[in-house]
Amino acid sequence: MGKKLFILLAMGALALCGYPAIAAGGDSGQKITRSGDLATVNGPDSYFTGEVRVTQLYPANNKMRSSGGKVTFQPGARSNWHTHPVGQVLLVTEGVGRTGEWGKPVQEIRAGDVIVCPAGVKHWHGAAPDSAMTHISICEETEPGKVVEWLEKVSDDQYNQQ
Amino acid sequence: MGKKLFILLAMGALALCGYPAIAAGGDSGQKITRSGDLATVNGPDSYFTGEVRVTQLYPANNKMRSSGGKVTFQPGARSNWHTHPVGQVLLVTEGVGRTGEWGKPVQEIRAGDVIVCPAGVKHWHGAAPDSAMTHISICEETEPGKVVEWLEKVSDDQYNQQ
Repeated sequence: MGKKLFILLAMGALALCGYPAIAAGGDSGQKITRSGDLATVNGPDSYFTGEVRVTQLYPANNKMRSSGGKVTFQPGARSNWHTHPVGQVLLVTEGVGRTGEWGKPVQEIRAGDVIVCPAGVKHWHGAAPDSAMTHISICEETEPGKVVEWLEKVSDDQYNQQ
Repeated sequence: MGKKLFILLAMGALALCGYPAIAAGGDSGQKITRSGDLATVNGPDSYFTGEVRVTQLYPANNKMRSSGGKVTFQPGARSNWHTHPVGQVLLVTEGVGRTGEWGKPVQEIRAGDVIVCPAGVKHWHGAAPDSAMTHISICEETEPGKVVEWLEKVSDDQYNQQ
């Protein structure tokens, strides 16, 4: 894999699902990370439209292949179109948002909803036009750090498609 | 595996991590489960002390091997001691709780904290004596439905160990 592609994939993992794959580091016991010590970054313009903040929750490790992140989209903000090699689960924790799947109408999602996106399904997710939305995102990887393939931006027409 | 053991393991998966393994059922697109349609059950006395409610969030499927559940412990309530064959992640979403690891002091956990428990580590988790606590639990399986091995109850002395 080229270096540039690897960096893009690692950024993708960071942006939507948490850390790229990091070995647990030989710590044999429970690890507690306090909320104040979790790292939060801006979702990059190359993968998102609008104001997006991503908090890394937990990495994949040498046993668990899932990783998790918390993503907050301000009103109108959304991810690019993308697919996941294994799949993704979204747990909406706050607000109202939207999700789109290629060739299907946009759906509203609300706090408490659970969205399961199978492997290879082209989709996007983000906030509603008039509400912020926060979700926890859980992805799994089969190669270290490879949890998402980023595609084109979601146009305003696609975002508003009924 | 004996039928009784299988039922116990399946109940264990249900209680701490969500559904036991259920195939995605051939639906090739995104599946949205509304919050009102999520099933909530009491945590059984055989695996928990005190009042515990478990909401099934998402199952493992034919690609993703993680499953997730939301667990609310009323003050003083806690799980039994247990281990996980692959590991577990707890995302504390509300309140104040406690977690214990065999041979180590009990630790307080609070909303926003993330706890990663490696495979095979004997631990428990629950509410504080004077506060309810809710966490999301994510486990992974290597055999269908096998995400936890339940052990003995956490005594009052162990619950209060400093």
